[in-house]
Amino acid sequence: MKKIRIGMLGLGTVGSGVVRIVEGHQEDLQRQTGAELVLSKIAVRDINKSRKVTVDPALLTEDPWEVINDPEIDVIVEVMGGVEQTKEYILAALDKGKQVITANKDLIALHGPEILAKAAEKRCDIMYEASVAGGIPILRTLVEGFSSDRITKIVGIVNGTTNYILTKMTQEGASYEDVLVEAQRLGYAEQDPTSDVEGFDAAYKMIILGSLGFHVHLSLNDLDIRGISKVTSDDIASAKRLGYTIKLLGIAERQDDLISISVQPTMVKDSHPLASVNGVFNAIYVYGQAVGETMFYGPGAGDMPTATSVVADLVAVTRNLLTGINGSRSSMIMNEKKLKSDEQIVSKYFMRLHVADKAGVLAKITQIFADYDISLESVLQLPNNGTDEQETEIIIITHDASKAGLNKALAKFEEIEVVKAVRSVYRVEG
Amino acid sequence: MKKIRIGMLGLGTVGSGVVRIVEGHQEDLQRQTGAELVLSKIAVRDINKSRKVTVDPALLTEDPWEVINDPEIDVIVEVMGGVEQTKEYILAALDKGKQVITANKDLIALHGPEILAKAAEKRCDIMYEASVAGGIPILRTLVEGFSSDRITKIVGIVNGTTNYILTKMTQEGASYEDVLVEAQRLGYAEQDPTSDVEGFDAAYKMIILGSLGFHVHLSLNDLDIRGISKVTSDDIASAKRLGYTIKLLGIAERQDDLISISVQPTMVKDSHPLASVNGVFNAIYVYGQAVGETMFYGPGAGDMPTATSVVADLVAVTRNLLTGINGSRSSMIMNEKKLKSDEQIVSKYFMRLHVADKAGVLAKITQIFADYDISLESVLQLPNNGTDEQETEIIIITHDASKAGLNKALAKFEEIEVVKAVRSVYRVEG
Repeated sequence: MKKIRIGMLGLGTVGSGVVRIVEGHQEDLQRQTGAELVLSKIAVRDINKSRKVTVDPALLTEDPWEVINDPEIDVIVEVMGGVEQTKEYILAALDKGKQVITANKDLIALHGPEILAKAAEKRCDIMYEASVAGGIPILRTLVEGFSSDRITKIVGIVNGTTNYILTKMTQEGASYEDVLVEAQRLGYAEQDPTSDVEGFDAAYKMIILGSLGFHVHLSLNDLDIRGISKVTSDDIASAKRLGYTIKLLGIAERQDDLISISVQPTMVKDSHPLASVNGVFNAIYVYGQAVGETMFYGPGAGDMPTATSVVADLVAVTRNLLTGINGSRSSMIMNEKKLKSDEQIVSKYFMRLHVADKAGVLAKITQIFADYDISLESVLQLPNNGTDEQETEIIIITHDASKAGLNKALAKFEEIEVVKAVRSVYRVEG
Repeated sequence: MKKIRIGMLGLGTVGSGVVRIVEGHQEDLQRQTGAELVLSKIAVRDINKSRKVTVDPALLTEDPWEVINDPEIDVIVEVMGGVEQTKEYILAALDKGKQVITANKDLIALHGPEILAKAAEKRCDIMYEASVAGGIPILRTLVEGFSSDRITKIVGIVNGTTNYILTKMTQEGASYEDVLVEAQRLGYAEQDPTSDVEGFDAAYKMIILGSLGFHVHLSLNDLDIRGISKVTSDDIASAKRLGYTIKLLGIAERQDDLISISVQPTMVKDSHPLASVNGVFNAIYVYGQAVGETMFYGPGAGDMPTATSVVADLVAVTRNLLTGINGSRSSMIMNEKKLKSDEQIVSKYFMRLHVADKAGVLAKITQIFADYDISLESVLQLPNNGTDEQETEIIIITHDASKAGLNKALAKFEEIEVVKAVRSVYRVEG
């Protein structure tokens, strides 16, 4: 039986999972592929560190170049993370004609085009299923399952940390700060949670999903990114009262050739399937012109789910090696990228305004919306039962409005005296 | 650009969808595959029939053999339905070295092994993504996405008609008979609804899912099949009261090497993602040893969703044709099939018993469960407020119990006088 030799960069959480699956499922994998999958070399930072899996110490090296330069190695599995240095390793591996599998979303989101171009030039496979939504085979689904369709919208809950925090806030009425501390204690959030809670992790994943779904090269500058650190329990309570749940959604849309893409906390109708995706789970909603609406749900992180995706890539690469067709798919032509302007980005919006509690205020506010051509779906003026009798709260949900129009209305509210504060503004989905 | 010539058998609902996608998405398809996809010949029953799509009349023939025997044709797309005659066409096409795509679940469920063996012998592709769950690319997900994992459970809502009926019964408290008539009027149910409502359609789909998931050849005799025609509004109301929803579930399980597979109306905990899959939508829950729980949701039928899957197969076949690797995947080794005995099939059960309303009855009943080693999770004796004062209802949910043990207890209930009737028994999931 032919041996496929694997060199791995990194042996952390995901890397340990890869070792476990390649060893534990070896017999199944051989039957699936017709080849023996051999882990031949693993680069680690510290050879002497104690690890969650037992690995023959002879396989370990502290020098990644030893793995990349090994002529025996067919496939490089990169699970070490990092961007600039790691890019150098991967480009060098491709240059040597090795197939590459990576779980590194930052790398693919930031340098995908350069890496894909190198893979195409060298007729090598570059696969990165594990970079988005852990164990959900969503990239395969977009590329293979919907190859016949024209995808028009991808909406994803793609960050488990923020979904855990929002779920807890919703279910227990707790504050953002308290839940974040708990999430950090449980290991669901990093000590520096910025990348998760400010939406950057989700943004990287949406870049990958949008690029594959719409066949364009998207980059970080193309996204509007807003995290969850400003979401308050009051916002969540207001959402609940109106039959909505707040979720951090990545939304990529295509209308004709125009694309918009964003990450933001969004009010999702309770009847929408995404509203009931709770805890650290991920889900991706895909709309296709022909297929209509579909959803894919599963664990978004974790050693074994993520390793499942890495090893599924390994199976695909191995099959390609045995039939000699590696790199045959990397020459896909790309569409020209045209982004929607703020005038063209249209959505429903929810907002909470604190206003002076006196006659004529509501008329003034609704007139401003009318001036900017924004019609309103519902207006809810709450009875003033707070401590400050001079102010009251108005909750507004608009019909579809352009982002530009909305921003003008919001700017106007800043100017007029009767609006004391715009407490919050959310996009509304479903 | 290379031309890939397609011969189609059938031009009904799905066939029309295939024509629309191949024509409407031609440019995208060419960029995806690097080839031109040409519909060269279509066999129909009646050339002169008026159709939903416009097709060049020169392409139509009433003789399927004219399509199969055309040496120019590379791929046969079978969307005509039927079993014995259709099998003959498909085997003949494979014999001529043509690639075959079919949407025919009955055919694959009943004759899959023979057809797959012929495809392997001739090194041809046989693909049938559209045969299960319409637009959801679930077969690809099982075969490619989870190629690295060991799948241990597949639970599916795979029949839209019965899910529509159960959803309506649940949401409106309507009777089975009334909703069935409405579903027939709306075209969601056939005039002879047997195949859907008695679970056979779902059974065929579960055979395909189980065979791919567990790498065995399953057949109709391996399944326990129960439909929804005996589900009453009382059952649904009782389920609701306890926090459950009744769904027609296909359940395929694998424990070590032992398999069990069934289709039956099942009580699903309201918090389980399958409980909120409503109307004609399908969803398939997949558990893998490494990945954990995942779910795939989408339209289970309809011309365009199903055609999306057919054309995705067409894209895959075309890519294989261009790289010359057709049939390279059909030689997968199969596991030996070992079915669980009724002693080994273990589940929670719900039941409604009508019993004599007198002292000692509950003791007698719980003693029978104890005799067969079945422990109870909850027992609910309803206050007797019916017309017949001699009887009352007891609702029981067991802990995990063997199917054999349960059947013995049920047989015992038939014998003893205090149990007037076993109104219903359901498996419980989640």
